[in-house]
Amino acid sequence: MAAKFYSEKNLKFILYDVHDAVALTQHAYYAQHNRKMFDMVLKAAGKLAKDMLFPLFEEMDRKQPELVNGEVRVHPSVPKILNEFGQGGWITSRVPLEHDGEQLPHLIADACDFIFQCANYSANAYQGLTYGAAHLIESFGSQELFNSYTPKMFSGEWQGTMALTEPEAGSSLTDITTMAEPTDSDYYLIKGQKIFISAGDHDGVDNVVHLMLAKIPGGPPGVKGISLFVVPKMRLGENGALISNDVTTSGVYHKLGYRGCPIVQLSLGDKDDCRGWLVGKPHQGLGYMFQMMNGARIGVGMGAASMATAAYYAALDYTRTRRQGRKLTQKDPALPPIAIIEHADVKRMLLFQRAVNEGALALLMQCSKYMDMQLVGSEDQQQKYHLLLEILTPIAKSYPSEMGIQAISQGLQCLGGSGYCDDYPLEQYYRDARIHPIHEGTTGIQAMDLLGRKVIMQNGEAFSLFATEVRDAIAAASEYPDLEAYARQLAACLSDLEKTSGHLINIAQTLGPEYFLADATLYLELFGIAAVGWQWLLQGIAIHKALGEGKPKKDRNFYHGKIAVMKYFFAYELPKTSGLMTRLMQADGLTVDTPTELFND
Amino acid sequence: MAAKFYSEKNLKFILYDVHDAVALTQHAYYAQHNRKMFDMVLKAAGKLAKDMLFPLFEEMDRKQPELVNGEVRVHPSVPKILNEFGQGGWITSRVPLEHDGEQLPHLIADACDFIFQCANYSANAYQGLTYGAAHLIESFGSQELFNSYTPKMFSGEWQGTMALTEPEAGSSLTDITTMAEPTDSDYYLIKGQKIFISAGDHDGVDNVVHLMLAKIPGGPPGVKGISLFVVPKMRLGENGALISNDVTTSGVYHKLGYRGCPIVQLSLGDKDDCRGWLVGKPHQGLGYMFQMMNGARIGVGMGAASMATAAYYAALDYTRTRRQGRKLTQKDPALPPIAIIEHADVKRMLLFQRAVNEGALALLMQCSKYMDMQLVGSEDQQQKYHLLLEILTPIAKSYPSEMGIQAISQGLQCLGGSGYCDDYPLEQYYRDARIHPIHEGTTGIQAMDLLGRKVIMQNGEAFSLFATEVRDAIAAASEYPDLEAYARQLAACLSDLEKTSGHLINIAQTLGPEYFLADATLYLELFGIAAVGWQWLLQGIAIHKALGEGKPKKDRNFYHGKIAVMKYFFAYELPKTSGLMTRLMQADGLTVDTPTELFND
Repeated sequence: MAAKFYSEKNLKFILYDVHDAVALTQHAYYAQHNRKMFDMVLKAAGKLAKDMLFPLFEEMDRKQPELVNGEVRVHPSVPKILNEFGQGGWITSRVPLEHDGEQLPHLIADACDFIFQCANYSANAYQGLTYGAAHLIESFGSQELFNSYTPKMFSGEWQGTMALTEPEAGSSLTDITTMAEPTDSDYYLIKGQKIFISAGDHDGVDNVVHLMLAKIPGGPPGVKGISLFVVPKMRLGENGALISNDVTTSGVYHKLGYRGCPIVQLSLGDKDDCRGWLVGKPHQGLGYMFQMMNGARIGVGMGAASMATAAYYAALDYTRTRRQGRKLTQKDPALPPIAIIEHADVKRMLLFQRAVNEGALALLMQCSKYMDMQLVGSEDQQQKYHLLLEILTPIAKSYPSEMGIQAISQGLQCLGGSGYCDDYPLEQYYRDARIHPIHEGTTGIQAMDLLGRKVIMQNGEAFSLFATEVRDAIAAASEYPDLEAYARQLAACLSDLEKTSGHLINIAQTLGPEYFLADATLYLELFGIAAVGWQWLLQGIAIHKALGEGKPKKDRNFYHGKIAVMKYFFAYELPKTSGLMTRLMQADGLTVDTPTELFND
Repeated sequence: MAAKFYSEKNLKFILYDVHDAVALTQHAYYAQHNRKMFDMVLKAAGKLAKDMLFPLFEEMDRKQPELVNGEVRVHPSVPKILNEFGQGGWITSRVPLEHDGEQLPHLIADACDFIFQCANYSANAYQGLTYGAAHLIESFGSQELFNSYTPKMFSGEWQGTMALTEPEAGSSLTDITTMAEPTDSDYYLIKGQKIFISAGDHDGVDNVVHLMLAKIPGGPPGVKGISLFVVPKMRLGENGALISNDVTTSGVYHKLGYRGCPIVQLSLGDKDDCRGWLVGKPHQGLGYMFQMMNGARIGVGMGAASMATAAYYAALDYTRTRRQGRKLTQKDPALPPIAIIEHADVKRMLLFQRAVNEGALALLMQCSKYMDMQLVGSEDQQQKYHLLLEILTPIAKSYPSEMGIQAISQGLQCLGGSGYCDDYPLEQYYRDARIHPIHEGTTGIQAMDLLGRKVIMQNGEAFSLFATEVRDAIAAASEYPDLEAYARQLAACLSDLEKTSGHLINIAQTLGPEYFLADATLYLELFGIAAVGWQWLLQGIAIHKALGEGKPKKDRNFYHGKIAVMKYFFAYELPKTSGLMTRLMQADGLTVDTPTELFND
């Protein structure tokens, strides 16, 4: 397996040169940090990833979780992994100092997650879910819930989950039927079924803490009647001992990939003894859950970008060592074969992977920075960055997920027949990555969220803020003669996006929501390319700044390589918007109007 | 698993309405056939597929081939499968009557392969490879070789293979090092290694007959020194008994998919006792092999279209039965959820799958018809159809392979989380299909073949013939008012393709082959969309003819469904050519000129 699974240099370039992570330390909340500390944290993350996570990448796939005697058996390393994440302060990296966390900027903590996920996505999922669940309790739960559950979650002894999906309620949470019956005590009695719960049960921890959606009888219909509960697998008995909470694991899924982490099916309250504790107020559960969900969506994007990054380095390694064929200008069979990276088509495949992966990473880190600014900025800024996050979340989830699959597929293709065999890691990345357009809201759901909610929210304010950010980048890039053409290209793309948005909003008003949202997925794709184009322009500015500052010679290849990738994005990827726009500007309602019986034969 | 894995109605529509299979019976060679017989053959193929092949689809994947004590163990049904293919006359369906074959048109025989591959690609591979190998012997081998080997291959008792690839010679066959040393007898002594040999060894047959490329010492360098040999696993001893021919299976690959059929590694002549018999003349081997290879390439395209077709029906079935969410215009949670096929985005995914699959199938059947016309036409026609096949082969291989993966991915997406789990067949189709852009020449190799050889061959004669065929379709479609707009759209696309081709040929002349071919893969994609657009226009014509003839009411949904799919292709797929063309019309040589050291960091 290739030794390299991410580029520290590129990560630091994006953190420091593109998104100015150090500027965050000017805010009081992050004032205790500095560049040196950030570097140390990144180095420590890299070491953990290299020493512990990456060596288990393949093994955790081959030994997939199994349900044995009602218990989910996972790879024996899982307790050690969670312990390291807990002891190393990785689960609490974003937790405030007052709660004994590290209070790291999201930008840095998310960069560490990126490193971990490049090494081993499944292994990182355990801690990521645990943090997300604990953070929900921290944000909306009572002090008692916080005290009872988060210490062992933060230490990696207990697993956290988000438990939303049910057999008849996946994309449509309106229809959940898990019920929470009030009792005379402080708890509710939970009854129902949950499916597709990541890390929903396993023998690597003493307990699993589900942050679960359920309905309290008599509440409003639909999503307005959903409440959030803490439902532990084991509850605390009177003497502090853990006793069963009537949460049964009824199945474990056998999946295409992402096999290092179990996804399970749960049955709650089979013996009418499953207790759940309300988080926050009744019927407000979906709103609370969306804090975790939004984080999880960006996390999925990050996971997708990570896998594709690791796959790229595995492919790169192969193209450097595999010798095959000759230059088209030197076909003499007596000459020795050349490394396949010398072939233009192979370079094209590598540039494509980098254009997608590094563009996606920059966009994700942009979101992380907005999260930080939302936390530390002035009130006005908080609202601004909140709206920017709102509109970018579906894109940050979907672009890396959809394009990451294609990037990995091209990586696999670089290996030819070897890419199809399990002697090389590409086939695993290919399997693993297919989950991303599905979990935490499918691409179709993201598209509806983007066009149907985010673009039109507050009279288009989120969209305007996004357009302003892009225009600022275009203006800044126009200062550099080498970037002018790309700035113009992006400006044209942005105005196409605006035109398309206006056209679609007009359809909403004249033809109604079905016609408006019929091609939302194409709109999401168009928006994604524009957003990543913006991030490439920001990277272009940072490169030219760096080169202007006379960076050391050893870094020149890095910067010139980045320029080639930027050019690739503008030459090969941005033009894809024209075909999308052609379709989006039509209004024939083809998919809406085709009756389902025409699919009969 | 869904009961339906292909549409008999659509297959017959393409065979009879679009490509007029019955017209072939006007030629003497096929005069013994008629529509009724064709229908019977298709029905028998459907029955075999349904009763034997489809039920084994999943099982053959789960029990993948293993090397046990030097022998490759395959699913215990393989002998039965091969026996059925042999006894049923399926292996000999294209073999002339004089050799006891069925002498079926390629159009019909290929349609049967389509049905078999929809049911179980891996199972069909055994017989497809055997036919291809036997056909090579039939075409170029001596009468003695024909008599010695083909009877047991045609009966399904012996396996045939094509053995080209070596550890250091995959895409570049120039570099094969397997040697064939002449002896005083009628055989050569073979020594070397072969890898990635499909069905290259297994315990389902008594013998394996390799059609193998090797070099005779002293021959010309490179591909001009490659000869073709029959190298059996077991050779005939003096008393007619089978004795070992020093062919050792040194490994079996564990693959992402396509697991029902083994791919093996062979070692030849470890004991200096591996005999090979020359096929045809020395040093002409690659030319002979390309007969099998061209057939195999179109066969890969057919396999890809088949898998994607079966995946579509599995997805369709799910979207009809799975209920989730409500119409955007009727969001009341008190209403029951609707089948997800009612959602516009789901219909879009289904239409995309059909647009790709049915377009690809029509193109493949077009190639089959050209094969028939090449066989039975006048001398002029033979040359015409030969050239059309030359230019269409890389497209017929690549479009279904590349787009089939995307179609299956959308099929998987229709199932959401269930698509990712092995309770449903989509994840298997997704794994199985990834082989197609790799085997029998990667997409990159097809692209170089198309642009670097086929487009420019005979002063562009093949391209002109293709353009004429497309223009004929455009003219015919323009007769129908409903098709006029699509005819115009395709005409514009064709002229874009011509313009792009001219631009690239100009680059070849001014900047040389590397710049000419740098984006050949994008050109292949562009050409593929144009070619499939042509096939959709032909289908449009056939639909309107059929509706004009007043087809029975029960078929109206079928035809109107086809119209919706055709519209989808022109609205969503054809516009993708504009982004491709934008890139192809540039000539910055980005991939050629980016030095490999820029990929360092």
